[in-house]
Amino acid sequence: MAIVLGSHQYGKAESRLVRFRRDSARHEIQDLNVSTSLRGSFAEAHLYGDQSQVLPTDTQKNTAYAYAKSVGIESIETFGLALARHFVDDIDPVTGARIEIEQYGWTRAVVDGAEHDHTWVRAGEEVRTAAITVDGTGDDRHVHVVGGLKDLVLLKSTGSEFRDFLVDEYTTLPATSDRVLATSLVARWRFETLDVEWDAVYASVKRILVAQFATLQSLALQQTLWHMGKAVLAAHPEIAEIRFSAPNKHHFLADLSPFGLENSGEVFHAADRPYGLIQANITRDDASDPGSAWDAGAGLA
Amino acid sequence: MAIVLGSHQYGKAESRLVRFRRDSARHEIQDLNVSTSLRGSFAEAHLYGDQSQVLPTDTQKNTAYAYAKSVGIESIETFGLALARHFVDDIDPVTGARIEIEQYGWTRAVVDGAEHDHTWVRAGEEVRTAAITVDGTGDDRHVHVVGGLKDLVLLKSTGSEFRDFLVDEYTTLPATSDRVLATSLVARWRFETLDVEWDAVYASVKRILVAQFATLQSLALQQTLWHMGKAVLAAHPEIAEIRFSAPNKHHFLADLSPFGLENSGEVFHAADRPYGLIQANITRDDASDPGSAWDAGAGLA
Amino acid sequence: MAIVLGSHQYGKAESRLVRFRRDSARHEIQDLNVSTSLRGSFAEAHLYGDQSQVLPTDTQKNTAYAYAKSVGIESIETFGLALARHFVDDIDPVTGARIEIEQYGWTRAVVDGAEHDHTWVRAGEEVRTAAITVDGTGDDRHVHVVGGLKDLVLLKSTGSEFRDFLVDEYTTLPATSDRVLATSLVARWRFETLDVEWDAVYASVKRILVAQFATLQSLALQQTLWHMGKAVLAAHPEIAEIRFSAPNKHHFLADLSPFGLENSGEVFHAADRPYGLIQANITRDDASDPGSAWDAGAGLA
Amino acid sequence: MAIVLGSHQYGKAESRLVRFRRDSARHEIQDLNVSTSLRGSFAEAHLYGDQSQVLPTDTQKNTAYAYAKSVGIESIETFGLALARHFVDDIDPVTGARIEIEQYGWTRAVVDGAEHDHTWVRAGEEVRTAAITVDGTGDDRHVHVVGGLKDLVLLKSTGSEFRDFLVDEYTTLPATSDRVLATSLVARWRFETLDVEWDAVYASVKRILVAQFATLQSLALQQTLWHMGKAVLAAHPEIAEIRFSAPNKHHFLADLSPFGLENSGEVFHAADRPYGLIQANITRDDASDPGSAWDAGAGLA
Repeated sequence: MAIVLGSHQYGKAESRLVRFRRDSARHEIQDLNVSTSLRGSFAEAHLYGDQSQVLPTDTQKNTAYAYAKSVGIESIETFGLALARHFVDDIDPVTGARIEIEQYGWTRAVVDGAEHDHTWVRAGEEVRTAAITVDGTGDDRHVHVVGGLKDLVLLKSTGSEFRDFLVDEYTTLPATSDRVLATSLVARWRFETLDVEWDAVYASVKRILVAQFATLQSLALQQTLWHMGKAVLAAHPEIAEIRFSAPNKHHFLADLSPFGLENSGEVFHAADRPYGLIQANITRDDASDPGSAWDAGAGLA
Repeated sequence: MAIVLGSHQYGKAESRLVRFRRDSARHEIQDLNVSTSLRGSFAEAHLYGDQSQVLPTDTQKNTAYAYAKSVGIESIETFGLALARHFVDDIDPVTGARIEIEQYGWTRAVVDGAEHDHTWVRAGEEVRTAAITVDGTGDDRHVHVVGGLKDLVLLKSTGSEFRDFLVDEYTTLPATSDRVLATSLVARWRFETLDVEWDAVYASVKRILVAQFATLQSLALQQTLWHMGKAVLAAHPEIAEIRFSAPNKHHFLADLSPFGLENSGEVFHAADRPYGLIQANITRDDASDPGSAWDAGAGLA
Repeated sequence: MAIVLGSHQYGKAESRLVRFRRDSARHEIQDLNVSTSLRGSFAEAHLYGDQSQVLPTDTQKNTAYAYAKSVGIESIETFGLALARHFVDDIDPVTGARIEIEQYGWTRAVVDGAEHDHTWVRAGEEVRTAAITVDGTGDDRHVHVVGGLKDLVLLKSTGSEFRDFLVDEYTTLPATSDRVLATSLVARWRFETLDVEWDAVYASVKRILVAQFATLQSLALQQTLWHMGKAVLAAHPEIAEIRFSAPNKHHFLADLSPFGLENSGEVFHAADRPYGLIQANITRDDASDPGSAWDAGAGLA
Repeated sequence: MAIVLGSHQYGKAESRLVRFRRDSARHEIQDLNVSTSLRGSFAEAHLYGDQSQVLPTDTQKNTAYAYAKSVGIESIETFGLALARHFVDDIDPVTGARIEIEQYGWTRAVVDGAEHDHTWVRAGEEVRTAAITVDGTGDDRHVHVVGGLKDLVLLKSTGSEFRDFLVDEYTTLPATSDRVLATSLVARWRFETLDVEWDAVYASVKRILVAQFATLQSLALQQTLWHMGKAVLAAHPEIAEIRFSAPNKHHFLADLSPFGLENSGEVFHAADRPYGLIQANITRDDASDPGSAWDAGAGLA
């Protein structure tokens, strides 16, 4: 009946790292938010305050900045893989590492109709994400890559219904066969392989998600997510599964009837809270074991 | 090699529900943020857009407001239990429910030295949290309650060291035997039983956390968390385990030497990002199986 | 030596109004955040709680939604003008109105290379703003329109210097002839006339701002702002003055020398706080009196 | 018809400065967010990029940290005065300075019923603010101090009405004689003198604001603000005027009638947006000229 230390990890969160490539007059920008977490034999630090096995989080940050120069950032997936492998392979007490990276988009400034060489405008559309996990060494080595995006805000002004739903004594919602459907999508997809053209796959997945959202006559956000996920898996054999968390950002039709005005799906109030929240996992029935791929917190929830 | 629907859930997030008790001239306030999620047989909604088994998220919100009146809110744990049981027991397709609640603190306004009957000032200290999961029916019924808090910002101006740590080629951090230690604590604790004086336990856990943070000579935030967790479990047999996520909110000593000034731990720059992030789970070695207690997203991560 | 009521106003802030045009299969979207403020004879409400001259803020919100339908939203400037004139002309106690509107951008979803008719992706680039003030009636009528934008995040990876600055005993900053320059621009411009092609002018001003930021070899953010403003005024005789508030979003070169790595403007840490803040007003020397054009708070600061 | 530089200023915003007093075992904490702005002869920097009269914003930050040690922080008002006077008196091109400071509250951790010597819990109640302006030198010297607070969230569950208001064709709001009244108060007060016990006055003003909000039977938030302001001025002859910006944080009674439940002011939905916004200035009729006291942006709005 003793009290014991369970799972634990530590790291440096949210290092805001900006990398330019300046090989020619036409510079390139990569704007990242890097978080590293290490797992391993850190019980002595917890139980006795003994830091001898603890690589400082400051060092983890330094490593990220150094690797941005020495290894470079081909994609956030490859950069995360390099960092994770380094921590597990080169730092003795570390048995597992998880690297989470966000990437912010920039578009080139346009001057006289031409894209500028070294000036950009922050593109607010969505944030690209990656979570890389490296567990164990040698034959026990497991490597997981989860790509993703968040804050992709999509809206359609028609082509969405919600009706014939279950009714109980607390139900007051009227059915509708024409509503606004909007979400701020979080999608994450787990790769089956590391032999991936990361940037090309990312662009393709995003394109598929947007197209499915746009073209499906939606009977529910649930159905939309299913079709988005199915289309991604159908097009990308290198992806094992895709997971969605999609708020239903409610748009309420403004009641203009007291003012003698008709409102045929034209004027809405966009509500902040509460919101519906639909979560779903679309997978292959022969997908590999995800292992710790989805585990942001070493079982810490 | 088919594409299939995996785990999924849906609900209404962040219903901002404020409940007053007005039985006497001395009113009471409970200020909540309620999120409900339902799990069950919703595949038809995803695959075919068939809503006949889908209780609208709007209904879930209505239920929360109705229960705030009809059942009342003895504590956020009991309120969450009532909602979760209702959804699983009374709504046919629902096999599991997860209710997450945040509670914001208010202190009575003071007028002429006396606490006012019906006026409050929002207390910013911390947010109390609860996550209630009810899975299954009859003999397969599992009920989990996780209490917690977040945004508890703690700081000590001395009594914290960080030295004798592991050094590699990317390490530049100097050791220190006297630093500022600050965190914005997230703590969550899983109950072994439902026979709990919820409010009293909450107050006690918070008191213990603060006292341990204050009195331990800290050799690392890891060590501080261990002692906080151990003290909570030692005092509360009804708690099976406690999990922490603790950012190390760095305070950097301002370098005043260029100005001929000494700075003996007096003037600091409080940094925003990056921050250290220490996560740990302190548990009993005979703790019950957590089941889905920690699973916010039905395996959706 | 009496205590008296000074300037005062009241209104409804942040009505989130979304307007679609559905005249054809190709819908249009306008996504606004509308705030209205009324000024006038409201002393009785303050001094005695007499509401007989107070049009509820709820009514102001209703009016915005009704006007979105009945008047429509040609541009946020024309919509604000219609609302402001209505409140001053039609509501007896109102002598002045200020309407502040933010507009969020959306771009059409692309499906198979073509823009979709009724689906959009939220474009995060910048928020368009307008502030319309109508003061008085008849010959004393003054109407002011201030257009603008905020959250336009610009960055250049070279072409920026900061050197030869004033040095005192607290100065430790090294000079640099090649730095990253980044800002999150707030710009607002006051119109001399109401005979304006609002959308075209907005697009042109934004284009000029971006181009100037990109092409000027910057010796200081101050100088960049001056040239941005001068170029806008030179191109747009209908604009009397333009005001900037521009944080200098610092990017610090990562010191990689301890790791034996050179860092020639490639790897940076993007800092959150503190930040420089440069504010400047560029104007015509014969600009009209701004009156209350810039006064968001009726002298309330 | 030339284009000219109008008003302008520059500075360092949001330096997060934490100061401890460690004279005895019982430490003291002051947690500040400091923003400095300088006004003066900076036209050369704008027009020609000549920095010779520009003290770097980095230096302004350094000065704040150095002064926190060398001058100390008796109160945020005195600290701001010292900084502002330094910039105007000691930096040749500077003719005016504005220092804006926010102070975050901390309460001592309680251990075994006693307040701890060097550990604190962040108190979320409200943020104390100060804005100090020093303009000119010698006989033309004007010094202004504005104290204040923000984020003071107040709520009363009864004792608030809103009825007998002006009605037009867009009015649908029902009158009420018992509603929830809540606000997140911003209050700022201008001092007539510098001979002030800053901390004592702050505590007193806050106490008065809370007590007035609590005890007045409110017929409108406008009336509440008036009485809050009048009471502050009546008690504090050193204050010339007080300005309020008060959102009406709407709490909507949940309609439980479809569920056969009565709701007598017990269960509410707390809405985010839109919100009413009431702004008012309460002043003495013989108050001194405010000059630039309220001018955060040198006429930059």
